Amino acid sequence: MQPPPKIAIIGPIMSKPTTVGVVTPQTARFESPLTLKSGATLPSYELVYETYGTLNADKSNAVLICHALSGNHHVAGYHSEHEKRPGWWDNMIGPGKPIDTERFFVIGLNNLGGCHGSTGPSSINPHTGKPFGASFPVVSVEDWVETQARLADRLGIHQFAAIVGGSLGGMQVLQWSVNHPDRLRHALVIAAAPKLTAQNIAFNDVARQAILTDPDFHGGDYYAHGVVPRRGLRIARMLGHITYLSDDAMGEKFGRMLRSGAYNFGYEVEFEIESYLRYQGDKFADSFDANTYLLMTKALDYFDPSHHHGHSTLSETMRAARARFLVISFSTDWRFSPARSREIVKSLLDNNLDVSYAEITAAHGHDAFLMEDPHYHNLVRAYMERITGEKAA
Amino acid sequence: MQPPPKIAIIGPIMSKPTTVGVVTPQTARFESPLTLKSGATLPSYELVYETYGTLNADKSNAVLICHALSGNHHVAGYHSEHEKRPGWWDNMIGPGKPIDTERFFVIGLNNLGGCHGSTGPSSINPHTGKPFGASFPVVSVEDWVETQARLADRLGIHQFAAIVGGSLGGMQVLQWSVNHPDRLRHALVIAAAPKLTAQNIAFNDVARQAILTDPDFHGGDYYAHGVVPRRGLRIARMLGHITYLSDDAMGEKFGRMLRSGAYNFGYEVEFEIESYLRYQGDKFADSFDANTYLLMTKALDYFDPSHHHGHSTLSETMRAARARFLVISFSTDWRFSPARSREIVKSLLDNNLDVSYAEITAAHGHDAFLMEDPHYHNLVRAYMERITGEKAA
Repeated sequence: MQPPPKIAIIGPIMSKPTTVGVVTPQTARFESPLTLKSGATLPSYELVYETYGTLNADKSNAVLICHALSGNHHVAGYHSEHEKRPGWWDNMIGPGKPIDTERFFVIGLNNLGGCHGSTGPSSINPHTGKPFGASFPVVSVEDWVETQARLADRLGIHQFAAIVGGSLGGMQVLQWSVNHPDRLRHALVIAAAPKLTAQNIAFNDVARQAILTDPDFHGGDYYAHGVVPRRGLRIARMLGHITYLSDDAMGEKFGRMLRSGAYNFGYEVEFEIESYLRYQGDKFADSFDANTYLLMTKALDYFDPSHHHGHSTLSETMRAARARFLVISFSTDWRFSPARSREIVKSLLDNNLDVSYAEITAAHGHDAFLMEDPHYHNLVRAYMERITGEKAA
Repeated sequence: MQPPPKIAIIGPIMSKPTTVGVVTPQTARFESPLTLKSGATLPSYELVYETYGTLNADKSNAVLICHALSGNHHVAGYHSEHEKRPGWWDNMIGPGKPIDTERFFVIGLNNLGGCHGSTGPSSINPHTGKPFGASFPVVSVEDWVETQARLADRLGIHQFAAIVGGSLGGMQVLQWSVNHPDRLRHALVIAAAPKLTAQNIAFNDVARQAILTDPDFHGGDYYAHGVVPRRGLRIARMLGHITYLSDDAMGEKFGRMLRSGAYNFGYEVEFEIESYLRYQGDKFADSFDANTYLLMTKALDYFDPSHHHGHSTLSETMRAARARFLVISFSTDWRFSPARSREIVKSLLDNNLDVSYAEITAAHGHDAFLMEDPHYHNLVRAYMERITGEKAA
């Protein structure tokens, strides 16, 4: 009888990327008052967050994920074995994934003002025992960066290996690099812009007006009336979706397809694109808080690091930054087009900063930053592999 | 004493372009039933129209103007000496203007379903004594062409020298060229598309949903409730305006300018672009009928001459056309981009039709078709001068 053949292991076995599994959100409570850019002060607040992977001994492998308009702390994994869909960036973050939780300690949080557990307009105001509603202050990207820095302090992290974000998340990364240049070694700014254009603001204002003029809005205090401004939030989300997708991708997926194959000559759902948008609008209106939506769009509109710093140009503002940058844009993104990312890149190069830039050819418009694309993911993977094991500066 | 010098007149004196002056709308009543594409029948209806210039003896100099989404019969001139703004295309039509009313007999009408005098949802249904409201049938571009043809019959015009329209108006011109090839010698199709894309339909559906879900809509019968779905119509118009303007033009005109120079950290009007859009929305909501808006956007969505004719390609559909074409697009129009006009041009060339095509470099996006641009206006002027005096075929 032959002995079983010996197996020589030549190199590391690459396991298939998998999930971080079941994760449990945690809550950090902050009792020291926070004065916001608006001048308003929050005496205390909570931030809900999740972590994946293990913080190493010298605390040099932490990665912060900043979320976009409708995102939250549930970035990867599942809240239970029965949850059908994983966190919103599960394709990017996990064991063996581009942001590899076997190398990095990854933190996702729900931003202040959110509606998924962090203190926001729908939270109970301890002074009144009622939801904050309209009394919750407008927060800015700078305020978020400050609260994220406090959370890092709480977790004992002085310097992040990287801070990563797409869209509004990318704006937070930019703001971090200016406000706390020594607290991040790498900045991954994806599908972002250095500030909104008039057209961007216009779309946001239409969305806000739909919510603000919904009779169920009640000046922001709809909680007390047992209603939500569902119609307005639905319109806002439908409109948002149009700007997240490219014209071509929408054409390819839906074209002029009719649900019943013929014109109905009425106002019921008829084209497939209508069905898709209304479904997205309905789903969102059932799960998201309208006041948070207002607040997030306002943070987007206000974001302009040059404005806040009293500088005249983005290049002058970025003079403060010390991080190395990976900037990524997507060819069919018309919300924050590649030209907007190139503005960021130029401002970094003007300051002799270390910057890699890639414009990914992708069909799906702004939403491409959330999708699994080999070119895009391999790029992030290669970048993150290269910075693995770096020590704190 | 010297005699006054003699003045030799070398050529015709070109008078400065001027206005057609005060015009009075007329109404044509049609008592023969009209069966619409939807299958619904209108037993009778009225069309309001204006004419400028003089119909010549052989009735060969008539030009029909087809209006777009929010247009009407008041194309040129003033309704009284006190009216501040002239008709919507006064810069194009009048004595000495590109469509010269000293050469042509120009007709503008309010389309069936409109809200400016032609029979539409806000008209009184003679059978009930109440406004049609939700019972007014959805009309299509083909239906409009039929009613326009009946108006031409009434005026004794068998063949138009030209039919001219921008945007949805251009779609009516295309439909005319297919449905009544012998009734127009020239087709001027400006800033149009052969059919809407999924993105175009998506924007229309968001606008419609804003109106349909406004609590004041009352299923379309808001007239009886003494209200109008003002909020919804306002949102629809604000959104529309974003798609009419180019990103660049909006940026140049409004940029990130703030009304008060500083952030307010609230939801009152703040950026200049917000002020502009809300003003446009308010003005429109005060003057336009929501049911007509719904109906016009549906006509846009349905427009697809190939679909209606059971043909598989636009080229096959345009085989029926006999007119000569001038097709014009504008470089920054992202609602109906130059690529959409080139689709039209290709289908005409595939049929060996006579077609001139110009892509005008213009900053103002889709709205450019309504603006006074020397290159654009000189092109239309030259085309119209060339066809002056042609006899009916």
